[in-house]
Amino acid sequence: MTAAAAFRFELTTRPPGPVAPRTGRLHTAHGVVETPVFMPVGTLATVKTLLPAEVVETGASIILVNAYHLYLRPGHRLIERLGGVHRFMRWDRPILADSGGFQVFSLAGLRKVTEDGVRFRSHIDGSEHHYTPELAMEVQQALGVDIAMPLDHVVPGDAPYEAAAEAVDRTLRWYRRCRDAAPGLPTFAIIQGGTHPALRRYHAREALQAEPPGFSIGGLSVGEPKARMWETVELTNAELPIDRPRYLMGVGSPEDLVEGIARGIDMFDCVLPTRLGRNGALFTDAGRLTIRNAANREVDAPPDPGCDCLACRQFSLAYLHHLFRNDELLGHRLATHHNLRYLARLVERARQAIRAGSFEQFRREFLSRYRTADEEARLASRRRM
Amino acid sequence: MTAAAAFRFELTTRPPGPVAPRTGRLHTAHGVVETPVFMPVGTLATVKTLLPAEVVETGASIILVNAYHLYLRPGHRLIERLGGVHRFMRWDRPILADSGGFQVFSLAGLRKVTEDGVRFRSHIDGSEHHYTPELAMEVQQALGVDIAMPLDHVVPGDAPYEAAAEAVDRTLRWYRRCRDAAPGLPTFAIIQGGTHPALRRYHAREALQAEPPGFSIGGLSVGEPKARMWETVELTNAELPIDRPRYLMGVGSPEDLVEGIARGIDMFDCVLPTRLGRNGALFTDAGRLTIRNAANREVDAPPDPGCDCLACRQFSLAYLHHLFRNDELLGHRLATHHNLRYLARLVERARQAIRAGSFEQFRREFLSRYRTADEEARLASRRRM
Ligand SMILES: [Zn+2]
Ligand SMILES: [Zn+2]
Repeated sequence: MTAAAAFRFELTTRPPGPVAPRTGRLHTAHGVVETPVFMPVGTLATVKTLLPAEVVETGASIILVNAYHLYLRPGHRLIERLGGVHRFMRWDRPILADSGGFQVFSLAGLRKVTEDGVRFRSHIDGSEHHYTPELAMEVQQALGVDIAMPLDHVVPGDAPYEAAAEAVDRTLRWYRRCRDAAPGLPTFAIIQGGTHPALRRYHAREALQAEPPGFSIGGLSVGEPKARMWETVELTNAELPIDRPRYLMGVGSPEDLVEGIARGIDMFDCVLPTRLGRNGALFTDAGRLTIRNAANREVDAPPDPGCDCLACRQFSLAYLHHLFRNDELLGHRLATHHNLRYLARLVERARQAIRAGSFEQFRREFLSRYRTADEEARLASRRRM
Repeated sequence: MTAAAAFRFELTTRPPGPVAPRTGRLHTAHGVVETPVFMPVGTLATVKTLLPAEVVETGASIILVNAYHLYLRPGHRLIERLGGVHRFMRWDRPILADSGGFQVFSLAGLRKVTEDGVRFRSHIDGSEHHYTPELAMEVQQALGVDIAMPLDHVVPGDAPYEAAAEAVDRTLRWYRRCRDAAPGLPTFAIIQGGTHPALRRYHAREALQAEPPGFSIGGLSVGEPKARMWETVELTNAELPIDRPRYLMGVGSPEDLVEGIARGIDMFDCVLPTRLGRNGALFTDAGRLTIRNAANREVDAPPDPGCDCLACRQFSLAYLHHLFRNDELLGHRLATHHNLRYLARLVERARQAIRAGSFEQFRREFLSRYRTADEEARLASRRRM
């Protein structure tokens, strides 16, 4: 059975409309995922610092890998010969791939976009590549992922209307080519259009024609004001059918998860929890905790007393502080584990609240306690590499 | 009961003489250690990259921490207030501390040695410190370790006889002060003397007067020829009572473990397995395996098929190669785990062979298969920091 044939989405609570919180289930060739869900990022076929069993322990049910990175190194054909990316990295749960569109347009050098595809230079060794919609799908097929993304034409968040419109039309044409190239993969449509409401609506409506198994909202959380981002999510979701999953790409702070879920988003991914973990910042219901702060030097208590992760169950904040002051890798591991566990628990709490009909209350209470990180930190995390 | 009162060593096989392989048991306040034993190094109260439970999984029964490093950061009094180093790092098995003598003389700056102690500048922040035998013991007492080392006066391996002799006499005087300062700690005597046979013999004989609970052989594996090192170990051990444990400091390559055990050494420690692991080199019975070698790119088999470690049980060499080529921390973890497991299995194999009376055969077979690492790599690992 192909990944496409195995793929199905069902709502488990009925939302009142297209822009409202909902719970659901993604059925894939490697198992079921309860939504809303946060997907840890395993760019290079490893969720940084963690073993697969530890990622499972955090409560993660699906992870993301990146087609661009794995195409460049070690190469998708090598992974295919070794049995696919699940076997390669020893992860037997669902995997979603990002096509690499965002990476080609943000990391690679010397880009030249034509109707055929994108010519770029590798950010690793400068080698020249021609990445096409067909190649992006060939890569994902070889990896053997459960959910695929099409190659999209990404323009900067502040691109003028004309440029954004051209990219939207190209992304629509490329989507048809992606579907044709890999009928065995469930390939979401990525909706672009910057923060131009008309373009977003247009892209969503046109994308519908191809009956995608799901929708990704791209090009957000790249520096635009938060209000603008949520406005865009709302007007996009308003166009989408209720019964298809919606994936908000590259978004993953706790407050953004809650706000996205409030607007009917089902799936999220972001490097934020793993990257912040390596930098020594922990998510808590009160906001971010900076492990290196001198005040934590002698705190003989778990970093986050309400948490049941490996770090909080076993170690003191004082010990984590010591590890980070000395750049010990065990600190990176423990903080990464905590942040992923935190987000897995957060979406679980959201799902429970939705099922109980009390999501609005949950959201209000959560946001009233959560101290948002400053804008600078948010911007630093915007890349979804 | 003090750590000193809990400490006891018993031989479980009777060696024919003082320079012969033997098995034994170290009884400590935190449990029993079978010898010969390799002690993983947890300089800063963490065995780099690993959780305590994982260190146990490798088969390690005792680890080493460093008094010099923990005195500087986070400070021994802080660790004492947090319940001691076992509780701080969540390791409930025996811990041996190195006094910091070697580190003061190799890492710190602007040293001035007087009869009272050593004045030095911290390698971290340049702050000035006066480290005395009494302070070294105060630190180890505050940490709450199971086996302590005295402060020794360390001179370079190629120091002339006069300088080495002066350091030996000072180390003898300092040892008495250490014992007086911390009667509750089982404090080994460290035997110095460079590669001057007369000095080594003198130091060993004089040290015996104080009836130390064990003996450490210091100042070796610092660049001298291997033959010289083993000659020195032999003539030192020849002076020591059979029924006291002998610890060869800073030695830890597989071939050196086997050669040391052959000469009646009971305990070893070295940063080599953890450091090599982070650099992508694995111990195997055939010698070191360099993970990054291009030949390993597509090897769909465990790195070391005979090994039962986390890495070899679960992952392919191709995947480890991929992790190291991309500097992924999971690779560091897995390779560290393998190397510690390898040495734990090696000493277990040696113990079995000694018990079976077949150690000489084991040694011959092992050394005939093991391809020794080049001298350069050996020298790079000589520091016991
Ligand atoms: Zn936690
Ligand atoms: Zn192994």
